[in-house]
Amino acid sequence: MIEENNIFIGNKPVMNYVLAVVTQINEGKTEVNIRARGRAISKAVDVAEIIKNRFLPGSEIGEIKTHTEEITNPDGRITKVSTIEIPIISSND
Amino acid sequence: MIEENNIFIGNKPVMNYVLAVVTQINEGKTEVNIRARGRAISKAVDVAEIIKNRFLPGSEIGEIKTHTEEITNPDGRITKVSTIEIPIISSND
Repeated sequence: MIEENNIFIGNKPVMNYVLAVVTQINEGKTEVNIRARGRAISKAVDVAEIIKNRFLPGSEIGEIKTHTEEITNPDGRITKVSTIEIPIISSND
Repeated sequence: MIEENNIFIGNKPVMNYVLAVVTQINEGKTEVNIRARGRAISKAVDVAEIIKNRFLPGSEIGEIKTHTEEITNPDGRITKVSTIEIPIISSND
């Protein structure tokens, strides 16, 4: 079974997301995906780097993927937005 | 010989960087690295996605890497900043 563990990056402070990921890993998850779109992408990279360097030095960043999503605005226009997916792979097993 | 082709993302409009990368690929480069740090990381992902989807459909995004750099401010404090490196691999050969 594939585990689906996603943390979506929004407007909260960086450390909230760091702790959300670290908590999931400490509960035994072997992989947690940090996901973001648009301007939150920079924050997603900060979250991954802080986890790897400061909180879970045994963890690794897996294959980072980017995509483009189409969003329909309330006025009907379609906007494109970039997304990122950063897997944190724990040293648990 | 390893080619070193870096485009650094700054404050200019996204399309400037898209065209800089596309120009290098059209001149025969087989790989161009889009690099950014801090808040410019989101823009770097936009640049890569626009190139892949709209300008060079035969190109691929290679292995994306992230790092942390230390910057010394004018007042002597050290700040950490996340960086990203997104390789665009052309279908030229």
